[in-house]
Amino acid sequence: MSISEFDLIRRFFAEATLARPDVLLGIGDDAALLCPPADKLVVVSMDTLVEGRHFLPGCDPAALGHKSLAVNLSDLAAMGAEPAWATLSLTLPEADERWLSGFIGGFAGLAASHKVQLVGGDTTRGPLSITVQAHGLVAADRALRRAAASPGELLCVSGTPGDAGLALDRLAHGAPDTEMSDYLRERLERPTPRVALGRILVGRASAAIDISDGLVADLRHICVASSVGARIELARLPVSAQVAAVCARGDWRYPLAGGDDYELLFSVAPERSEALLRDCAAAGQQVRQIGRLVDGSEITLVFPDGRVTKELPDGFDHFDR
Amino acid sequence: MSISEFDLIRRFFAEATLARPDVLLGIGDDAALLCPPADKLVVVSMDTLVEGRHFLPGCDPAALGHKSLAVNLSDLAAMGAEPAWATLSLTLPEADERWLSGFIGGFAGLAASHKVQLVGGDTTRGPLSITVQAHGLVAADRALRRAAASPGELLCVSGTPGDAGLALDRLAHGAPDTEMSDYLRERLERPTPRVALGRILVGRASAAIDISDGLVADLRHICVASSVGARIELARLPVSAQVAAVCARGDWRYPLAGGDDYELLFSVAPERSEALLRDCAAAGQQVRQIGRLVDGSEITLVFPDGRVTKELPDGFDHFDR
Repeated sequence: MSISEFDLIRRFFAEATLARPDVLLGIGDDAALLCPPADKLVVVSMDTLVEGRHFLPGCDPAALGHKSLAVNLSDLAAMGAEPAWATLSLTLPEADERWLSGFIGGFAGLAASHKVQLVGGDTTRGPLSITVQAHGLVAADRALRRAAASPGELLCVSGTPGDAGLALDRLAHGAPDTEMSDYLRERLERPTPRVALGRILVGRASAAIDISDGLVADLRHICVASSVGARIELARLPVSAQVAAVCARGDWRYPLAGGDDYELLFSVAPERSEALLRDCAAAGQQVRQIGRLVDGSEITLVFPDGRVTKELPDGFDHFDR
Repeated sequence: MSISEFDLIRRFFAEATLARPDVLLGIGDDAALLCPPADKLVVVSMDTLVEGRHFLPGCDPAALGHKSLAVNLSDLAAMGAEPAWATLSLTLPEADERWLSGFIGGFAGLAASHKVQLVGGDTTRGPLSITVQAHGLVAADRALRRAAASPGELLCVSGTPGDAGLALDRLAHGAPDTEMSDYLRERLERPTPRVALGRILVGRASAAIDISDGLVADLRHICVASSVGARIELARLPVSAQVAAVCARGDWRYPLAGGDDYELLFSVAPERSEALLRDCAAAGQQVRQIGRLVDGSEITLVFPDGRVTKELPDGFDHFDR
């Protein structure tokens, strides 16, 4: 790409984004100038998606634009933060206008729905890769962390974990269209960051995390950070019909370790749980209690037939098998 | 890389960084929590270095760690900001411990010298690529921009532009060691971000930019943003002996369009220039006046023999010729 092509891309991006009053200078100088409110912390998360690693070659560029921002907004959601600004570094093998237009459309659509302004970044030539940093705002004493959970608290999860892992496996293995519903594909390619849920949890949940590494792996992060154990009742896991069909064959790896699910896992004190779950439902947020935190450090799975195990499924490595 | 290898890398990074009091939560949760002072703006810059595009395969990892942060600190310097925090996304073909140790050493060394804390990021597998976002702080009304220059002002530059472009050309063409001094290699691989100079310019220079795209290309950014023209006297260009030897053959492309120089180009009102240049010298900052801003929109070059041209050298594209 020549320098003028890069300039074109930058302008393209600058025009695709909304303008927030707290951005004093956005795209177009050496750096952006942001004015966070004095009573808020700035929350930052950075994630990279690499072709062949996080998405398959030929992936719909609009879905990719959406997802590259969504995975970062999901991290902000897990902190209870309100999204504000994003930066984007796009590494492209070539400046393909149709691809770019699709990508920007997907990115800008999600950004607009969360009032996120794209304030800067970089565009360079190389193997396809996308790095986004999202910046959010949260009151200092209300950010959701991993380290504040206690034994006896209820463990809850949003959405239907396992969908993305199942979809990716089917895509990667060239499943016939009949096995790959639009629902599953959307869950993989256009995840909904649970920003609204995170805002409800602020000041009420004790710990929260997003389960992009898989439910058990991310639960372990809470357990280690908070020095607690956990007990999950598999019969309570909220799963889609497609994932339920796999679980019915005794394979629980998708909801437990599928990964790439941008749902929130959180703990809440029993006395606060009823009001919290009611408020989630009232806001249209699907949340289910799936277990409890316990003393110790171990994670225990209780199967629907009452069998108990501490043997946890490994995470998938969808691209490396 | 397995998940545990990634965890290891994260811990490696977490231990390599200093701890600032304004970081409430660094590496290790869904996102970092930062507490900027109420009277400052947050300045953000993101740059990506891709192997084969921005550096040659086999590049010293310590130099790469240094440079990936330096190019971003240079952008903060051009805004007059004080560096504070960084995030790092590292995409690696494999988890090579020696490489990583070198990279982290280079990154952490520069970070420590500017009191920058690494607060988060991502580690993933793929073609070697490094994205860094640097965050700085600056008083709201004092940030240096591109758009505030006026005709009649003096145009100044720091350091000796052209070194990096010459070094890269010699490296890319396998020049014998005799032609590639340690000085030139350091200028390419371990650039010094002019953070201290940027702090001196704050509130005194009218416009500033770093010349990573090349002196003329970045001067044009100031000219377009500020609606001014410029006149550069080539005899005044501060160049190293190696670059001077090329210029003496009539080839001025390296200092004018070499690129990858992390020097600052700035404008200053004549009545402020004497005190400013004196203060720069007192602080050990090498700065030279190289021309003036003029009415209009054109950039004019005045050769040492008095010849004048408006034909500007194209930027180099070191990897694409």
